[in-house]
Amino acid sequence: MPTVDDVASAAGVSRQTVSNVLNSPAIVRESTRQRVQEAIDRLGYRPHASARRLRTRSSSTIGLRLDPLRDGISGAVLDRFVHKLAEQADARGLRVMIFTANGAEDELAHIRRLRDGSDIDAFVLIATFHGDPRISWLIEHDVPFVSFGRPWGSVVDDPRHRWVDVDGRAGVRDAVHHLRAAGAQRVGYIGWPSPSGTGDERRAGWEEACVFDEAGRRRYQVVTVDGVDEGVRSARHLLGLDAPPDAIVCASDSLALGARMAADAHGLTDLPVVGFDNTPVAAAVGLSSVDQPLDEVVASALTLLFGPEGGIVRPNPDSNEEPTNRLLVPRLVERRSGHRALGEITGA
Amino acid sequence: MPTVDDVASAAGVSRQTVSNVLNSPAIVRESTRQRVQEAIDRLGYRPHASARRLRTRSSSTIGLRLDPLRDGISGAVLDRFVHKLAEQADARGLRVMIFTANGAEDELAHIRRLRDGSDIDAFVLIATFHGDPRISWLIEHDVPFVSFGRPWGSVVDDPRHRWVDVDGRAGVRDAVHHLRAAGAQRVGYIGWPSPSGTGDERRAGWEEACVFDEAGRRRYQVVTVDGVDEGVRSARHLLGLDAPPDAIVCASDSLALGARMAADAHGLTDLPVVGFDNTPVAAAVGLSSVDQPLDEVVASALTLLFGPEGGIVRPNPDSNEEPTNRLLVPRLVERRSGHRALGEITGA
Repeated sequence: MPTVDDVASAAGVSRQTVSNVLNSPAIVRESTRQRVQEAIDRLGYRPHASARRLRTRSSSTIGLRLDPLRDGISGAVLDRFVHKLAEQADARGLRVMIFTANGAEDELAHIRRLRDGSDIDAFVLIATFHGDPRISWLIEHDVPFVSFGRPWGSVVDDPRHRWVDVDGRAGVRDAVHHLRAAGAQRVGYIGWPSPSGTGDERRAGWEEACVFDEAGRRRYQVVTVDGVDEGVRSARHLLGLDAPPDAIVCASDSLALGARMAADAHGLTDLPVVGFDNTPVAAAVGLSSVDQPLDEVVASALTLLFGPEGGIVRPNPDSNEEPTNRLLVPRLVERRSGHRALGEITGA
Repeated sequence: MPTVDDVASAAGVSRQTVSNVLNSPAIVRESTRQRVQEAIDRLGYRPHASARRLRTRSSSTIGLRLDPLRDGISGAVLDRFVHKLAEQADARGLRVMIFTANGAEDELAHIRRLRDGSDIDAFVLIATFHGDPRISWLIEHDVPFVSFGRPWGSVVDDPRHRWVDVDGRAGVRDAVHHLRAAGAQRVGYIGWPSPSGTGDERRAGWEEACVFDEAGRRRYQVVTVDGVDEGVRSARHLLGLDAPPDAIVCASDSLALGARMAADAHGLTDLPVVGFDNTPVAAAVGLSSVDQPLDEVVASALTLLFGPEGGIVRPNPDSNEEPTNRLLVPRLVERRSGHRALGEITGA
């Protein structure tokens, strides 16, 4: 196999110049760079990435644990996140390594191994939660990371915990305001049990905008785990009330799809139902949904980690001058219900 | 930072024994392995993966290009594949690196870069197609790979092209037989335009089992690109025929969801509709669907690449004795239509 020396003598330059072309092309004159690149191509020289990484102690690789497979509706937003992360990382010359784990402790064991092997420069965490052990470990061991999800339950933001999140409270609040502006008198809510950082925020958005008194907030709200069947059951309960809701907002598209099906089965094909995450299913069946700006989430996460220059940024723990987090605002995507959308498609 | 020598002297063993513990623990006596591991933990020694990889010229890493985001219904099967690949790779001590690309040529450019950097031991290709340039390049350059998808259009199998695929023809054929056994007289089909390796196989399964003459096969078949709206339109056409179909099989769950919606809008809530891929959406709305055995797909792919011993297997191009491919049989998952399933959930 050809070596750096072979390339250097073929191009009539020094070893150092070849190395600069490979590692810092910006500092090499363009004509020289081209001559070296031609020699590299002609000889078929292959710089060994592991040697380069050993030299620089950098892997240009981001580690990401995939969330366990869920029902595939609510999980779709994270699959989209993974795609967008891979795309934007590519554009920055970074690679993405994925792994799986059973829970936070197992994820931490993987993170330790990958970090011990210097395989990964930085980690991206998803689905943070109260008392998340990954965050304290990563801060303590000075491992760069950013989370999609904020530090739930922390009193003070630690600037070493870089995070990006979407303001679910604002998203649900806006959806309720929108429904009320369109004439809804009683907007019901189907959401997740407390404590759930994400779920509690979304519910708070409904509580802020729903104009019920405390008894009404209890009456027009169903708490359930996520799932389509749970959405069906919960909506059926709400629609069976005296003075039932005339619109329903849900913490997820899985719940909203169930609520839509239950409303249709009750003959209420015009009852507005709003989900969260704007998943492909919502688009397919014509559900309105709150959309997370994932392109912006990923761009913000990478900028917090790598900065505009491309090198890992090390936040100063004693300074809060540069914010190391971003709370992004989602937006409601309005659709007619499945049946009305269907009429439009078919001309029926 | 502590070195291998520090670990060796702390544990009272040779450098080579430390190296064996790190790289071939199976050949080290258990008590010795534990003593060395304790020294590693106590000293905080971190073997540098890049150094190890440089030594072994192996990265223990599989490269996978993510398919571009599609409507998220048909794409869900590939997201599930990615999860399962990450899980099973973990269990074998392998890592998965993901990247994105715009088309096969761009993917090939990525593959060349990753291969030139010795970053990847083997590639997993998804979505093979007629004249796929990736396959000839990988064979020519002796880069180990396996594809989820067979070599469409090749007359003879090259054993260096390891592949796993699911027999879509058998899956659709079984679905049609099943519908006919349940009493359907006229099973219609909504599928993709030719040429499409996967699409042509699925259609062939319908043609084999549908018992129409040639005119009937033309009449009861709609060809369309994938999508929910296309499923609605295609089913609407079929249901508007004289003597319309009394069951519909589709090449995907996206099409089937559209067909289900169109049938429901026509009041035909009992008309059987069968999709393909058994996506989460099919489960959510109660569609029957042909299920791809993804656990088995991934296990077969990794076994073809790495064998039971864990090292990359190099197929002998001059021998066809050991098959280097697997064609797996899918299975129909039966569900009642959305409306009937809903009745069951709600007790309505």
